[in-house]
Amino acid sequence: MSLSSLPRAVRFEDGNLFILDQTKLPSKIEIIKLSSPSEVWEAIRSLRVRGAPAIGIAGAYGLLTGMKPLTGLSAGEFKAKAAETAAYLDSARPTAVNLGWALGRMMRAAAACCDMPASEIYSAMEKEAGDIYREDAACCRSIGRAGAGLIKDGCGVLTHCNAGALAVSELGTALAPVYTAMEEGRAFRVYADETRPLLQGARLTAWELSAAGADVTLICDGMAAHVMSKGLIDMVIVGCDRVAANGDAANKIGTLGLAVLAGHFGVPFYVACPGSTYDPATPDGESIIIEERPESEVTSFGGVKTAPEGVKVMNPAFDVTPSGLITAFITEKGVIKPPFAENMKVLEEKP
Amino acid sequence: MSLSSLPRAVRFEDGNLFILDQTKLPSKIEIIKLSSPSEVWEAIRSLRVRGAPAIGIAGAYGLLTGMKPLTGLSAGEFKAKAAETAAYLDSARPTAVNLGWALGRMMRAAAACCDMPASEIYSAMEKEAGDIYREDAACCRSIGRAGAGLIKDGCGVLTHCNAGALAVSELGTALAPVYTAMEEGRAFRVYADETRPLLQGARLTAWELSAAGADVTLICDGMAAHVMSKGLIDMVIVGCDRVAANGDAANKIGTLGLAVLAGHFGVPFYVACPGSTYDPATPDGESIIIEERPESEVTSFGGVKTAPEGVKVMNPAFDVTPSGLITAFITEKGVIKPPFAENMKVLEEKP
Repeated sequence: MSLSSLPRAVRFEDGNLFILDQTKLPSKIEIIKLSSPSEVWEAIRSLRVRGAPAIGIAGAYGLLTGMKPLTGLSAGEFKAKAAETAAYLDSARPTAVNLGWALGRMMRAAAACCDMPASEIYSAMEKEAGDIYREDAACCRSIGRAGAGLIKDGCGVLTHCNAGALAVSELGTALAPVYTAMEEGRAFRVYADETRPLLQGARLTAWELSAAGADVTLICDGMAAHVMSKGLIDMVIVGCDRVAANGDAANKIGTLGLAVLAGHFGVPFYVACPGSTYDPATPDGESIIIEERPESEVTSFGGVKTAPEGVKVMNPAFDVTPSGLITAFITEKGVIKPPFAENMKVLEEKP
Repeated sequence: MSLSSLPRAVRFEDGNLFILDQTKLPSKIEIIKLSSPSEVWEAIRSLRVRGAPAIGIAGAYGLLTGMKPLTGLSAGEFKAKAAETAAYLDSARPTAVNLGWALGRMMRAAAACCDMPASEIYSAMEKEAGDIYREDAACCRSIGRAGAGLIKDGCGVLTHCNAGALAVSELGTALAPVYTAMEEGRAFRVYADETRPLLQGARLTAWELSAAGADVTLICDGMAAHVMSKGLIDMVIVGCDRVAANGDAANKIGTLGLAVLAGHFGVPFYVACPGSTYDPATPDGESIIIEERPESEVTSFGGVKTAPEGVKVMNPAFDVTPSGLITAFITEKGVIKPPFAENMKVLEEKP
């Protein structure tokens, strides 16, 4: 396997953001150019780019697409406009902390530019966005090294949604240990939950793992318990959108159920994420806002109506896994074990 | 609500079997006429008629469609042909015990006809098939009465797949207590898992509950844990395809996961089924054959491809819930509590 063959979710060039439109996968590989914050907002909202780290990066670059034409403004006007645009981009999706975190970094980089013209503020912001990207890529490599050792020859790894190369700068979070263990020459099975309603597991995870030559088996979400009961799963690894101070973790809807099942069947349950996902300002899972998405995602698929007209629907995009169900976090600072409230603090330290 | 407005899955008239084609729901209500065992076999195999009790009834009537033109044969030839046809029909689906059970009853009814011409054997079989239907309908009403008292005003009931009117003669198994509690004037919420891959919950359960005026909310399978964690669910009621002697129960894939979640969140987990589902000849869940269905059910929906070409897939149609996770069985003989190996024996007694 070659890691360089993995797809790239986001790329910034000449003031434009290029993304692989993930709503079209796996049937179509389509790169689209986004030239304004409103285009980036739409792409984040409609999940053309998704995954907590990737939307942070897209948000940072999205801010650049809006600010590049405005370097003729005064420094004060430029910063005010940047703040307004950042707030707008941050409103695209509420649950992942990375979007607000990346935009906050961009605004702090701008604020640090005293007595500079707008063009130099823009340059500082451009450097900051590049740093966010490069740091994420480095994080993912570190997460891969930290977690790869957990994956032994012949074992079975279950994952949910997509926390692979498509969800980040490069490599992935949950899939980083998988790719790294493959690079290290170990052979093992990966099971991908299809992840209804939007099938990120089927469309994205199965696709990128197949492309990388992994031994991947696709299952429906309701099959996870059966597969675990047959002894096929040795560990669950998922990504994460926000980790609260106490270690509660918000991730794609369906994650909580997997964590409960893993506990029942005695399978370790790992959450892989960069430190930027850790949000000490959120005390616990109860305080995390859960995005409710459109009913049509549940009542139809690919234009095919799958439910009767007018039926009531719930469509929370995320759920919260209490820290007690999590075996460990796999981060760029290594594998973090309980007690999380204490041990997660290492993620607040500067690298 | 009027129970008479509920749809009828199977009906036998003038030697033909009429079924509501459940693969077309909810977009189209189409009654199809089946005039031969091969048409009935195809309809059972491709889930045009489904649900453990309903396929038992369809199997019995399906046998009649094959035997009606053969009453000119000698009694011996007629019985031999009936045995051959019954074995063929029984091969349509392997997991539900009801199909083999109903066909066994039909063959015993034929065997009991000594020194009779084929036409009279046919009449005896026709009466037996009618009895199977009427007994199932009576069973369902009894299950409804037995379970309705468990459903209190204001509570939340979660169900999986379809074990409603569409799965039986009339009323349902898991949904019989729901309909009966509605008739008794109680107001409560029902949550229907969509039940991938074939979406029987979205297409069938949400449809028949909506039609009956129930307060039903559709969720994806992976949302059940979240909904339980929010305290919205007071009980889970599912149907069943086969109960082993020790109380292990095979039901639609995804049931085992719900049972584990119910245990974790302290929610009672009920299995509703007629006594014909109890199979004392199967010692435990390990001995139940689990039907593996086509990969295309997982990799596409409604003609839309949802997974990359060539990806490996698992598609077990059922899973086995160990008896220890089951609070009680709701049957026509009342609510049966543990120890099941002992208490299920009441189902073997003649009514």
